Amino acid sequence: MTGDTAPSSRTRVRRLPGRAAYDAVTISSVLDAGVVAHLGFVLDGQPYVIPTLHARVGDAVYVHGSGASRAIAVLGSGAPACLTVTHLDGIVLARSAFHHSVNYRSVVVLGRAVPVTAPDEKLRALEAFMERVTPGRWAEVRAPDDRELKQTSVLRFDLGEASVKLRAGGPGDDEHDLALPAWAGVVPLHLAAGPLEPAADLDPRIEPSPAVRALIERFGG
Amino acid sequence: MTGDTAPSSRTRVRRLPGRAAYDAVTISSVLDAGVVAHLGFVLDGQPYVIPTLHARVGDAVYVHGSGASRAIAVLGSGAPACLTVTHLDGIVLARSAFHHSVNYRSVVVLGRAVPVTAPDEKLRALEAFMERVTPGRWAEVRAPDDRELKQTSVLRFDLGEASVKLRAGGPGDDEHDLALPAWAGVVPLHLAAGPLEPAADLDPRIEPSPAVRALIERFGG
Repeated sequence: MTGDTAPSSRTRVRRLPGRAAYDAVTISSVLDAGVVAHLGFVLDGQPYVIPTLHARVGDAVYVHGSGASRAIAVLGSGAPACLTVTHLDGIVLARSAFHHSVNYRSVVVLGRAVPVTAPDEKLRALEAFMERVTPGRWAEVRAPDDRELKQTSVLRFDLGEASVKLRAGGPGDDEHDLALPAWAGVVPLHLAAGPLEPAADLDPRIEPSPAVRALIERFGG
Repeated sequence: MTGDTAPSSRTRVRRLPGRAAYDAVTISSVLDAGVVAHLGFVLDGQPYVIPTLHARVGDAVYVHGSGASRAIAVLGSGAPACLTVTHLDGIVLARSAFHHSVNYRSVVVLGRAVPVTAPDEKLRALEAFMERVTPGRWAEVRAPDDRELKQTSVLRFDLGEASVKLRAGGPGDDEHDLALPAWAGVVPLHLAAGPLEPAADLDPRIEPSPAVRALIERFGG
């Protein structure tokens, strides 16, 4: 999974190939920047797309869920799956309706999940979910006990068949529209944090921990 | 599509049914609040999940794309599809690793697309894409010409088989963890706008239009 070529015919970006990337660094960076993935699977011929958290560790990406979940059951059986993470980076405003667009980064991973049963790998994956979103948090809280570990299913996808598609930059207006009086450019968008909402039952003497403050800083709240 | 019951067995939320909703008002509000949808379809047994813009008009939701796109071709043939829109509303921090979660709203629409060929409906749908993201913009820019309309395919899904799932509120720690010294609560997240980036070739005398200023205000930039 290196270089500029697609790892498979079905991963190759056909439309606007100049917007595609297939290298591990780009794939990892787009996966790691996202909190939510969309996971696709097929049941009785019907595709389902559900939001889920994900965490990349090396050349694998993990998802998790309740052992009672239908999606986890289908995916855990090794059915074909697709995991997609998308960032909306901005609204692109052109002089013509046609050239309006959005700036985005999106990674698509094709593959089949492998259920993670080894306790060590499972615990490491759960730590990765938390640490990826809130670095430093794992050490601040109570670790999962055996019962909680048993209730949680973890699935692993390898990143052998993945591709990135993205758009960046300003509008691509046609030459003959450039003199129109409309404002043109980009409204950049990003996820931002609002004011902390302490739990109703939180002891008011407990201040936000370093991991919580770091999370706020990450999202520029 | 009214009331508290699922419109179909396969739409019914099985896990944590207390987090589900099936009424038209909730479904519309979650669809309308989102800029990006994830669209699922199946090709040769493999599910694909791709990001796309969407726009709801009444009881239908539209997507569009290049007539040359593989996804549009598959979906336009009436293959089973799934359109999902997810909002990440916050990171939920608990005293135990197990009860960490995210607050979110997600709508899942199952169905088969119908290609929109009537020029009037097509133009109205394209207007809806723009007006939903940037209200007032349609009147500020050059409308699509015949060539542009021909290059753009528009697909319609009806909302007959849709469901919403969401989580809101603080962490649900176990009783025996409440005395732990970890900070607990929610870090709310929302999309925010950054400083405007005018196009490199924009006449500097052109100020941001009312629609552009309204977009910035919508995202609290």
